[in-house]
Amino acid sequence: MAKDKGARRPRAEAPKGFRDYFGAEVTERAEMLRAITEVYHRYGFDPLETSAVETVEALGKYLPDVDRPNAGVFAWQEEDGDWLALRYDLTAPLARVAAQYRNDLAMPYRRYAMGPVWRNEKPGPGRFRQFYQCDADTVGAGSVAADAEICAMLADALEAVGIPRGDYLVRVNNRKVLNGVMEVAGVLDPADPEKFAEERGIVMRAIDKLDRLGEDGVRALLGKGRMDESGDFTDGAGLSGDQADIVMGFMAAKRGYGAATVARLHDLTSGSDTGRAGVEDLETIAALLDAQGYAADRVEIDPSVVRGLGYYTGPVFEAELTFEILDEKGRKRQFGSVAGGGRYDDLVKRFTGQAVPATGVSIGVDRLLAALREKGRIGGRVAGPVVVTVMDRDRMADYQAMAGALRRAGIRAEVYLGNPKNFGNQLKYADKRQSPVAVIQGSDEHARGVVVLKDLVLGAKIAESATLEEWKDRPAQVEVPGDDLVGAVRRMLAE
Amino acid sequence: MAKDKGARRPRAEAPKGFRDYFGAEVTERAEMLRAITEVYHRYGFDPLETSAVETVEALGKYLPDVDRPNAGVFAWQEEDGDWLALRYDLTAPLARVAAQYRNDLAMPYRRYAMGPVWRNEKPGPGRFRQFYQCDADTVGAGSVAADAEICAMLADALEAVGIPRGDYLVRVNNRKVLNGVMEVAGVLDPADPEKFAEERGIVMRAIDKLDRLGEDGVRALLGKGRMDESGDFTDGAGLSGDQADIVMGFMAAKRGYGAATVARLHDLTSGSDTGRAGVEDLETIAALLDAQGYAADRVEIDPSVVRGLGYYTGPVFEAELTFEILDEKGRKRQFGSVAGGGRYDDLVKRFTGQAVPATGVSIGVDRLLAALREKGRIGGRVAGPVVVTVMDRDRMADYQAMAGALRRAGIRAEVYLGNPKNFGNQLKYADKRQSPVAVIQGSDEHARGVVVLKDLVLGAKIAESATLEEWKDRPAQVEVPGDDLVGAVRRMLAE
Repeated sequence: MAKDKGARRPRAEAPKGFRDYFGAEVTERAEMLRAITEVYHRYGFDPLETSAVETVEALGKYLPDVDRPNAGVFAWQEEDGDWLALRYDLTAPLARVAAQYRNDLAMPYRRYAMGPVWRNEKPGPGRFRQFYQCDADTVGAGSVAADAEICAMLADALEAVGIPRGDYLVRVNNRKVLNGVMEVAGVLDPADPEKFAEERGIVMRAIDKLDRLGEDGVRALLGKGRMDESGDFTDGAGLSGDQADIVMGFMAAKRGYGAATVARLHDLTSGSDTGRAGVEDLETIAALLDAQGYAADRVEIDPSVVRGLGYYTGPVFEAELTFEILDEKGRKRQFGSVAGGGRYDDLVKRFTGQAVPATGVSIGVDRLLAALREKGRIGGRVAGPVVVTVMDRDRMADYQAMAGALRRAGIRAEVYLGNPKNFGNQLKYADKRQSPVAVIQGSDEHARGVVVLKDLVLGAKIAESATLEEWKDRPAQVEVPGDDLVGAVRRMLAE
Repeated sequence: MAKDKGARRPRAEAPKGFRDYFGAEVTERAEMLRAITEVYHRYGFDPLETSAVETVEALGKYLPDVDRPNAGVFAWQEEDGDWLALRYDLTAPLARVAAQYRNDLAMPYRRYAMGPVWRNEKPGPGRFRQFYQCDADTVGAGSVAADAEICAMLADALEAVGIPRGDYLVRVNNRKVLNGVMEVAGVLDPADPEKFAEERGIVMRAIDKLDRLGEDGVRALLGKGRMDESGDFTDGAGLSGDQADIVMGFMAAKRGYGAATVARLHDLTSGSDTGRAGVEDLETIAALLDAQGYAADRVEIDPSVVRGLGYYTGPVFEAELTFEILDEKGRKRQFGSVAGGGRYDDLVKRFTGQAVPATGVSIGVDRLLAALREKGRIGGRVAGPVVVTVMDRDRMADYQAMAGALRRAGIRAEVYLGNPKNFGNQLKYADKRQSPVAVIQGSDEHARGVVVLKDLVLGAKIAESATLEEWKDRPAQVEVPGDDLVGAVRRMLAE
């Protein structure tokens, strides 16, 4: 401390793009994670916790914005020259673990993981650089039955956290179908898969932005490029009008029911082996889900789903909340995506050289919490502790003993530990803590062996209605024998 | 991926000093955190979750090793020039929060927090650079009643996670007493508190190492310095023999019972106002705890406790597990410290310029878990899921439906998703997963409307005892009607 003297004071601020979570925000998230992981557990998934830090080389360069391959992560160099970084998702660490422990893990390896991830992106309103994900993945299963299982589990998880059936939809697509369409459009040559890779990246990101940019915006990105409202220009894929038509037709291929969509996709990809295989995968997934009762009211095939991440190789899925909310400008819009995932058969191969099929889903916990708050399903008033006030500072031991007795009975309780001089401040504190009951024992009460209990919930109601009339049979303050403290508080809390 | 072609493969390794946690390691820790925070909650503490990242200026330089003020954290520079770092504990972020939200928080502010912290230290066996802490602190309470409450809560928390009374001890000391002793020894001048600051730092760290270095080692550090086994030399505080005697006498001041220890400390600090105030604080803490039933079998005054961190200003405490374990060399030793804390009245002041008293404790969750494992209280066999095997790959939907039915009945279940060709591999997988029951339905069983259940727990027992005789009344494999699947599995699990 000595050397700080005279130095300017540090700013008391979280870094830009980071935030603090208080009270119910923390417990509500913990509760949601518990509910989701309980579903994952029931499906046979085992927990895995990797550290927040990975080597940059193990993480790889898979962030959505492949335009800037080195950006997007928080990284630093160690004294020994190694570059380390904070994980940007939970999938890259899983791929590393699956490679590192490939001889020890029971394969297929079903694992779940939860925790914060970090993105070094420009922060914005509601856009943070640390957020929670809760993932489940199956490594070592090439069958689309694994993808179907993930979709079913995702639906179960959403219902487990309080999103009723009808308020969500798991939309499924297949990158292979998209690749088939790219073949047909002439931006993918099966004989030379690297050719047009950049163009396809732009196409994929453009499709992913359909919700936000609308058809015209996407069409601009497929063609020459697009200027946004701020004047920033994004390069386009340079597709001709005919080529763009094929891609746009693909996005619009969704029909009223799954079989019709599949038939349309068959047409759109005719002539592409990859495309046909992709459509067949989709049919199998739909059939598996249907047989288990996951019908179109919960899971549907939707060609407009592509998911931004570059590493997907097969089925991709996205869970969308379908109810409407008002956006910041007061316009109605669908709440949108809260989870996404897909098959990534090449991620583990990066390490081992051997193909290891894998598929999984990531739930965006913070967005899902926001949705539940929006719907009023969480975020109600949380009861604070019973507050034992301090009338006589020399009797602190007695007050602590009262709080102790309440706690042993399972009642949340605390002694006021601020300066006890001003009793009004103690009641103000109890109020701010949303305390249901204040316990008071001055020297007079002590001499008579009694304590006073103040019903703060009732007190607040009386203050609100401004008339004592309707509460007159229920006094907001009672005197009880000292040895009845626990029982009397319990009765007051139960009222 | 395209550009990685030909590049060398990344190593599939967690960075040095970081590790992965699998299965029960994750759930056992989650369970421990739940038990601890449940105690914190009952004491009226509210959860707070700050992000992993703080500005370097907000974190300050408070790591134990004040010899190297800039080392110890993982830090990096942002494009805008700001330095960010991973938090090294949960106290520094709390001080920042208490300053940032000082007008909004109900004061005194009792908060708990849990999560990983990061130390950029040389990793070693059992020494990791990311580990969990679970803290509780009270900000804005100057009274030692707040310190006493923390000590009582710490004892309760240890018992809540399964450390029985008698296997732990909360040891309490006071930095003010130590400062009083420093005054008496002539290395602290109340009129010029900065003088001898460096010497006092060395003295404090030396005392903190009494367990590890023994009396001679500490004496060397108090005097000219000490050469360790590897030949590294640590500078000493340069105290004379008489001065060192006073400090050593302080560490040995513990007597058989609290009042005798207090009397001895009174003697040792006579002549120092700070020392006297510190001893009185200790007496008050002991009296408050005693009145609530926390006697010397749980909490004791021990002058050898100093805690390494530089920011403590008053009472300091440490929870020690008193049972013996064998160290890596097979020697018996006490398990040692699993939690520590104290009063730090100046941390918030760094930001605001106004003194805000604060006190708290940090439980080293990973060490506590290691202790419970050592005692065999956790770490038993964990039951895996029921595994539905795949005899006929075209009937995947049926197998998925069976697993779904089991799950809906609350039974953990999964379908085998590897290549189903080799049935032996499926049973080996079920075994590796510690599955209790395998469900089998080939085409013959399907035609007859039955399923076969294989009791893998019983099967393992039979394999072990190598005689079927004793199990002959309980077949390891039964055939049940298909529509009795759930009931039959449930009965088998209950056996």
